[in-house]
Amino acid sequence: MKTRQIVLASRPVGMPTKENFRFESIDLPEIKEGEVLLKGLYYSVDPYMRGRMNDAKSYAPPFQLNEPFTGGVIARVTESKSDSFAIGDYVLGPLPWRENCIANEKDIRPIDATVAPASYYLGVLGMPGLTAYVGLMHIGKPKSGETVVVSGAAGAVGIVVGQIAKIQGCRVIGIAGSDEKINILKNEFGFDQAINYKTTPDMGKAIAEACPDGVDIYFDNVGGVISDAVISHMNFHSRIPLCGQISLYNNTSDATGPRLQPMMLTRSILMQGFIVGDFQNLFPEAIQHLSQWIKEGKLKFTETVIHGFDQLPAALLGLFSGQNEGKMIVQAEEKDPIPAEKRV
Amino acid sequence: MKTRQIVLASRPVGMPTKENFRFESIDLPEIKEGEVLLKGLYYSVDPYMRGRMNDAKSYAPPFQLNEPFTGGVIARVTESKSDSFAIGDYVLGPLPWRENCIANEKDIRPIDATVAPASYYLGVLGMPGLTAYVGLMHIGKPKSGETVVVSGAAGAVGIVVGQIAKIQGCRVIGIAGSDEKINILKNEFGFDQAINYKTTPDMGKAIAEACPDGVDIYFDNVGGVISDAVISHMNFHSRIPLCGQISLYNNTSDATGPRLQPMMLTRSILMQGFIVGDFQNLFPEAIQHLSQWIKEGKLKFTETVIHGFDQLPAALLGLFSGQNEGKMIVQAEEKDPIPAEKRV
Repeated sequence: MKTRQIVLASRPVGMPTKENFRFESIDLPEIKEGEVLLKGLYYSVDPYMRGRMNDAKSYAPPFQLNEPFTGGVIARVTESKSDSFAIGDYVLGPLPWRENCIANEKDIRPIDATVAPASYYLGVLGMPGLTAYVGLMHIGKPKSGETVVVSGAAGAVGIVVGQIAKIQGCRVIGIAGSDEKINILKNEFGFDQAINYKTTPDMGKAIAEACPDGVDIYFDNVGGVISDAVISHMNFHSRIPLCGQISLYNNTSDATGPRLQPMMLTRSILMQGFIVGDFQNLFPEAIQHLSQWIKEGKLKFTETVIHGFDQLPAALLGLFSGQNEGKMIVQAEEKDPIPAEKRV
Repeated sequence: MKTRQIVLASRPVGMPTKENFRFESIDLPEIKEGEVLLKGLYYSVDPYMRGRMNDAKSYAPPFQLNEPFTGGVIARVTESKSDSFAIGDYVLGPLPWRENCIANEKDIRPIDATVAPASYYLGVLGMPGLTAYVGLMHIGKPKSGETVVVSGAAGAVGIVVGQIAKIQGCRVIGIAGSDEKINILKNEFGFDQAINYKTTPDMGKAIAEACPDGVDIYFDNVGGVISDAVISHMNFHSRIPLCGQISLYNNTSDATGPRLQPMMLTRSILMQGFIVGDFQNLFPEAIQHLSQWIKEGKLKFTETVIHGFDQLPAALLGLFSGQNEGKMIVQAEEKDPIPAEKRV
């Protein structure tokens, strides 16, 4: 069958543009034993994909020129030569950005759309939720009464970090880039304080006021000058799970800033870059806690849904101007592809 | 009795000078119950003392103006009203820079000068050796076959770090500031490679050549541009025990440099500032291993001994121009104050 795909047309210099993406029509072969044909339903766009557009050593291999982008996709099985999957099953996998694609049964896993909306498996019950859980709980190690600051707080990871920190009894301050985001962080997601970095002239002062006892954990999704302002208020024995640096992803030269080591030394601060894939042994524990908290109403989630496969490039670029609240996903079709009776 | 002391006359701006120190003569009162009178024998000078000359929040409280410096001192008991110490005993404690001083029995501990030279309790069996052990073994966590780079390699901590790393089966590269130091690191202390940063025009290239498999552990004693050169060659999942930043201690403004977080993120690097005092539960294990390795001839040590109490300020300042090989100590008297039969 014919299907469309989105390939990396060229590597971006600085901020990516639509010219870095190209739509193509290709022929899919017949599926073989152990394979399924899939129809893409929900496509994940995530900040880490920016790094994969570069040809640079990182934790995720670079996308290849003239090859399709890949990422987390929720799909429906439309043909099957696999004993594990039947037509109509909903699955999750790292899949190419194709409207239809072929996958080996080993590379996908079933999802249960009765536990939570299917798209949540790209968010709070997927990579971002697991990232929030392992980074906060196993690197940050929050203790009741501590102060936790989260940057990129209204993003897919940040919004979960803040709520888990509240569940752990911490005081939680979020940093985000619009008054609407500040509003939902405080009023819908229970953050104690939230700071709009775009309208705050002196972030250092704002952090000092919001954190009278200093900062014990800084869960960093953004980097750059926002992080400088937070890190100067870190306490002795504080921890910095380093999850993202979205403010720097489109820099064309190495950024400079204050040297952190003297302060990290004199205050015995820990900073750890991490990727969720290194903590797979913790996934069962994480999923159990996250599901339980969702069931108990303690953990809420939000998504920004863009409609139409054609919108994937725009959705990815939108992450870098903060156009998302919670998880940014692209829904392949106008109407919700998973029928209501399959959803919570 | 009358004795001399050295007090902080003024706080330095940038590099300290002799004007920041003042010698005074004071009267000591009679000792009370539970106290001893001590004669100072060996005085430790250490890089961390520079931080205590500032009036700034750090892990060690600032020295007070017009009050004596304090630090690790090996002393002999000359009068005792303590049941725990007799005249002639050798003790170690955090003591004031006085030729004679009074200490409470609770603030000093006996040393056994038959296990190792008494001054080693200020070095390999004291704070620097324990720092090397806990930082390398419990933050760096070396595995056989890994590559370890140590800056300040010929200092009291660095020289122990490198040898422990060799004992753990690692390839070890030291960075130091003179050809004489490079020579002893390679020929006396078993380092695989050593680099003189003062005569190496391109440190990044030198690190790349010395570490063809990248760097797994960077034990950092110096900071600044030397660290930049090493850190850009760190491997995935590498570790940076942050022990010292001597190259920056005399800066009068906050230093700037490359932002490390993007690299720490994409390579899952851990960096941890630490102080040895937070690892007291590991001291018995550390002392046992260090003593054993000394006994087996696997761990050697070296000292730079300056003679005369009057030389304490010059010895401390000498650390910042790298005048020491191994541990820098000041011996109060011209002749060795501990008789030969008490030493190994």
